[in-house]
Amino acid sequence: MIFSVSVLMRFLVLVVVGLVTVPAGEAADRDKLLSEPGIYGTFAAFSLDADWAKQDQTIRIAQLTVLKGVVEQHREKLAIDTYLLRGLSDRADVLFRIHATELRETQQFLLDLQGSPFGKHLNTAGLMHGLTKKANYVPGLPDNLKAELKTPSEPGPKPYVIVIPIRKDAEWWSLSQEQRATMMQEHTEASLPYTKTVKRKLYHSTGLDDLDFITYFETSRLEDFQSLILALEKVKEFRHNRRFGHPTLLGTVTSLDEIIEVLAQ
Amino acid sequence: MIFSVSVLMRFLVLVVVGLVTVPAGEAADRDKLLSEPGIYGTFAAFSLDADWAKQDQTIRIAQLTVLKGVVEQHREKLAIDTYLLRGLSDRADVLFRIHATELRETQQFLLDLQGSPFGKHLNTAGLMHGLTKKANYVPGLPDNLKAELKTPSEPGPKPYVIVIPIRKDAEWWSLSQEQRATMMQEHTEASLPYTKTVKRKLYHSTGLDDLDFITYFETSRLEDFQSLILALEKVKEFRHNRRFGHPTLLGTVTSLDEIIEVLAQ
Amino acid sequence: MIFSVSVLMRFLVLVVVGLVTVPAGEAADRDKLLSEPGIYGTFAAFSLDADWAKQDQTIRIAQLTVLKGVVEQHREKLAIDTYLLRGLSDRADVLFRIHATELRETQQFLLDLQGSPFGKHLNTAGLMHGLTKKANYVPGLPDNLKAELKTPSEPGPKPYVIVIPIRKDAEWWSLSQEQRATMMQEHTEASLPYTKTVKRKLYHSTGLDDLDFITYFETSRLEDFQSLILALEKVKEFRHNRRFGHPTLLGTVTSLDEIIEVLAQ
Amino acid sequence: MIFSVSVLMRFLVLVVVGLVTVPAGEAADRDKLLSEPGIYGTFAAFSLDADWAKQDQTIRIAQLTVLKGVVEQHREKLAIDTYLLRGLSDRADVLFRIHATELRETQQFLLDLQGSPFGKHLNTAGLMHGLTKKANYVPGLPDNLKAELKTPSEPGPKPYVIVIPIRKDAEWWSLSQEQRATMMQEHTEASLPYTKTVKRKLYHSTGLDDLDFITYFETSRLEDFQSLILALEKVKEFRHNRRFGHPTLLGTVTSLDEIIEVLAQ
Amino acid sequence: MIFSVSVLMRFLVLVVVGLVTVPAGEAADRDKLLSEPGIYGTFAAFSLDADWAKQDQTIRIAQLTVLKGVVEQHREKLAIDTYLLRGLSDRADVLFRIHATELRETQQFLLDLQGSPFGKHLNTAGLMHGLTKKANYVPGLPDNLKAELKTPSEPGPKPYVIVIPIRKDAEWWSLSQEQRATMMQEHTEASLPYTKTVKRKLYHSTGLDDLDFITYFETSRLEDFQSLILALEKVKEFRHNRRFGHPTLLGTVTSLDEIIEVLAQ
Repeated sequence: MIFSVSVLMRFLVLVVVGLVTVPAGEAADRDKLLSEPGIYGTFAAFSLDADWAKQDQTIRIAQLTVLKGVVEQHREKLAIDTYLLRGLSDRADVLFRIHATELRETQQFLLDLQGSPFGKHLNTAGLMHGLTKKANYVPGLPDNLKAELKTPSEPGPKPYVIVIPIRKDAEWWSLSQEQRATMMQEHTEASLPYTKTVKRKLYHSTGLDDLDFITYFETSRLEDFQSLILALEKVKEFRHNRRFGHPTLLGTVTSLDEIIEVLAQ
Repeated sequence: MIFSVSVLMRFLVLVVVGLVTVPAGEAADRDKLLSEPGIYGTFAAFSLDADWAKQDQTIRIAQLTVLKGVVEQHREKLAIDTYLLRGLSDRADVLFRIHATELRETQQFLLDLQGSPFGKHLNTAGLMHGLTKKANYVPGLPDNLKAELKTPSEPGPKPYVIVIPIRKDAEWWSLSQEQRATMMQEHTEASLPYTKTVKRKLYHSTGLDDLDFITYFETSRLEDFQSLILALEKVKEFRHNRRFGHPTLLGTVTSLDEIIEVLAQ
Repeated sequence: MIFSVSVLMRFLVLVVVGLVTVPAGEAADRDKLLSEPGIYGTFAAFSLDADWAKQDQTIRIAQLTVLKGVVEQHREKLAIDTYLLRGLSDRADVLFRIHATELRETQQFLLDLQGSPFGKHLNTAGLMHGLTKKANYVPGLPDNLKAELKTPSEPGPKPYVIVIPIRKDAEWWSLSQEQRATMMQEHTEASLPYTKTVKRKLYHSTGLDDLDFITYFETSRLEDFQSLILALEKVKEFRHNRRFGHPTLLGTVTSLDEIIEVLAQ
Repeated sequence: MIFSVSVLMRFLVLVVVGLVTVPAGEAADRDKLLSEPGIYGTFAAFSLDADWAKQDQTIRIAQLTVLKGVVEQHREKLAIDTYLLRGLSDRADVLFRIHATELRETQQFLLDLQGSPFGKHLNTAGLMHGLTKKANYVPGLPDNLKAELKTPSEPGPKPYVIVIPIRKDAEWWSLSQEQRATMMQEHTEASLPYTKTVKRKLYHSTGLDDLDFITYFETSRLEDFQSLILALEKVKEFRHNRRFGHPTLLGTVTSLDEIIEVLAQ
Repeated sequence: MIFSVSVLMRFLVLVVVGLVTVPAGEAADRDKLLSEPGIYGTFAAFSLDADWAKQDQTIRIAQLTVLKGVVEQHREKLAIDTYLLRGLSDRADVLFRIHATELRETQQFLLDLQGSPFGKHLNTAGLMHGLTKKANYVPGLPDNLKAELKTPSEPGPKPYVIVIPIRKDAEWWSLSQEQRATMMQEHTEASLPYTKTVKRKLYHSTGLDDLDFITYFETSRLEDFQSLILALEKVKEFRHNRRFGHPTLLGTVTSLDEIIEVLAQ
């Protein structure tokens, strides 16, 4: 059978890459980076160049092993998540989400990544930065809404990831804080039915990029996610989005080892 | 004559590729995937890189044989249709339409496709996803309209395929369900004269891509299709299309074996 | 002198390419294809890749000879016109205008063209399709206008060709037939002074491409053509053009043999 | 010193290229081409491909020598000016401005240029055509304005060149000739303070390209040029520019011999 | 450890590149160039081609050594600042900011840069020019505002750099000087809280590029910078920005030696 060789290789990749480990003692405080305000989140999407796939598999595996080393080394300071976009997005093959207290540390990681033998085959498809903040409008929400927002999302894997960059129009920023708060309350109410099945995170991009927000979603139920976006499109605040998506990135939450396995084939 | 060699090769391709078969027992329930709501439809358009045509024909045939294997293997779970765009669209050479109950399975197919020796020559020209749903506005239509909509399209081959992505403007989504239903009734009435000769299928894209809808058409009479689009452009609902086409994909319904034959030359 | 070699080569090209002939008996009814309604017109613009010019001239001549064979063979069913864009348009080097009763036959020609050794050096710069129709608004015109429109253009060569794609805005299509007819009468009157020196042909593209019309012009007097366009820009109908050009293709009517001669150098 | 070799080469280039001369007797009537109405002006901007700089310097010098021959040969019929854009514009490296009585002659020059060994390294970055005309609105200007417009620009070299393409909006063309004349008088008055230090020339592009005008400027004082543009942006007519620049080309007036010297390094 | 070799190389680069020095006596009056009006500022962003990283490290170091020589040589006349964009911007890898009294001198530097062995691997990602001027609106500001504006920014390194190009809409330029001054006073007041932690510099681009302004920022506190931009988005003047960013360039102030070190790896 034509696929038996690749099964063997899949096994080899797992063995070789599994040997790369980094002492766990100094790992970044991932929970803190993923939950606190004042953290910089970077979304770095890459596509592989045409030469990548034309190399011998042993060379590719060697390069992917170095990739794992680079990522593990920087996980001492950064929270790094990986996603597979290939097959679901036409813009890029892989996506890194990096949380850091300083963007310089993210830059150092990406410099090491792009400077590695694997990185020489990466084309940067997009780079977006945002800052986490305390929720702007939540303090003004009625108490019952606040309570509902605290409903944790259902446990279990949420394999799909969607990243939607947003730019507001000039009129939005010229509205008063109260006017924006009123619209955001309507926005929040529209999203409530989906808090259980769609996990969300918001990044403030203004000035760091040609965006105002990066919205990040995880779900196991894409149909619910679509209903959520349809609900959000119907509220007034949506009319102040000058850009929504373009690109919308759709992918799957995929560990670095799994990505390495896919790319080794 | 300069074309006699290619005739021989055409024969060889048919013989070699014909040997690739997959036990039919486990094929996906194609009818169900193509008719039910809650199914994900993916349109994946590819162009071939410059190196493809410069390879020896024997190498190309070997790679195309693997392509057939990859497609047949995934047909156990997916409904996969193929179209030839080259010569009619300037964006891409081939188009796959994939129906699946889960987008992850579509991703796995495209990963295997792009990871195959043939896939290394594919550039992704576009990737669009949509979800099939029960018709939103049909329940509110008058009974005679409902009946007319059920007219099956004429039997016989419909060789031409047209795919038109659509994005509605923000105003559309801020209208009430009744206002949208009224406009959709006018839209539906305008399309009735063409139900017999133009087959249509609708996919809901919101959130999965930078689109709201993917509209899919098959016809043997392009002139009727043009009249249909002209009729649709004249109704009010059309003014709420922020994007219509861009790209419009035009191609021919072409079996995988025929596509392999064209690409082998 | 540095150019003497190329003079000799020019002679050789003419001799070699002249040997490719096809029995004339089965040629398509060119007059019919170029004058009747219900005919599909395709504009296929190509640029040559960087490798083309780096090949030996003998190889290029061999490939151009096959090109001639491919075109002549398809002239049995199609009317194929050729234009040289290089030096006048920055989008493409050559343009084919193909008239067919079925777009599938045009697709077959372009598949054979792109599959030929010469075609492997072609990048598709643009592909536009349109359908010829009986003039929509002419029946409602006053008789004197109808008569003037019938004035044949002056005989003699019209070396320059201009192709301008047009997309109307949504408002245009929402106007009544009468409103559009009134505006088209003003449009027609504005164009009358140029019927003698500028030959025009119209193709309806809606649905086949991201256009509504392809307008095609031939002239020996570009200054008159410019005056014609300026006159058309001043009428009300022009304000309903969402897209006009982009690209405007400017080239010269050039026989296939002359194009082969240019590309052989 | 690392630059001493390039000094020697600079000398060699000057010697070799200086040997290419063409009998001066048949040169085009440059003054006429540059001053009369009814002349076609073409702006052809090119960038050099990545292979150019990787060739041996002797090969590059040989190719540049042929370039000089091609230009000199066509100067019999055409007025050809050259500009260096590299280092000031990001779109292209060199710019040719070609004046001709017939665009076919310009096409023949560009065909010979692109067909030469040097031309095989050129990528066309942009091609714009325009026609010189008698000043449209000047006849209606008050006498004192007419007199001021005749002030010749100060003698002496004007090393900087700026080319700004312009497209008017549909409303502009729908205004009456009087309305446009009134606005153009305001435009003209705003530009008067700069007639001495900024030399201007206007080309009418409508229909020949996706533009209405090409405006050409030469100056030794870029600060004055900036003041001129700021003054023009403040008049009513400016609001009818749908496109202004995009690209703005900025470069230096550079003789062909100087360009050859730069490219030989 | 896999990174030990690169540590050695980092040392070697520092030693080799350190040997390139230029007599300091003739250095440009950097302070004057960075503070006076009437100075041309050029922002030249480059990305490295795919071949760069595939060269042997010794070759790369040799080429970077020449790069240092080219920059040092031109520092006699120009003020040249360098920034690392890679890892923070997806448009380019390095950015040069060049201040000159004449743009021709900047052009000469960039010609030498691009003509050097290192420069053959540079793709120009963007080139923007602006002119420094006396502050337009400051004379009309109330005295207390003038005083506050003079507050020097806090001492200490400001590692982050942000460059935002701006184009005003046509309406802005048609306003009276008083109307613009009123809006600029509101703009200035909004920016005052950030004068200590965000350093700003303004360049006037009109006519030199497809921009009106280039705004340049340095800060050690990106969060403050984001607050500054949010504050500026809320004033009326912001609504007259037709383009703001696109691209926004984000990078780190990085000496030439440090950039060489990064690129040598």
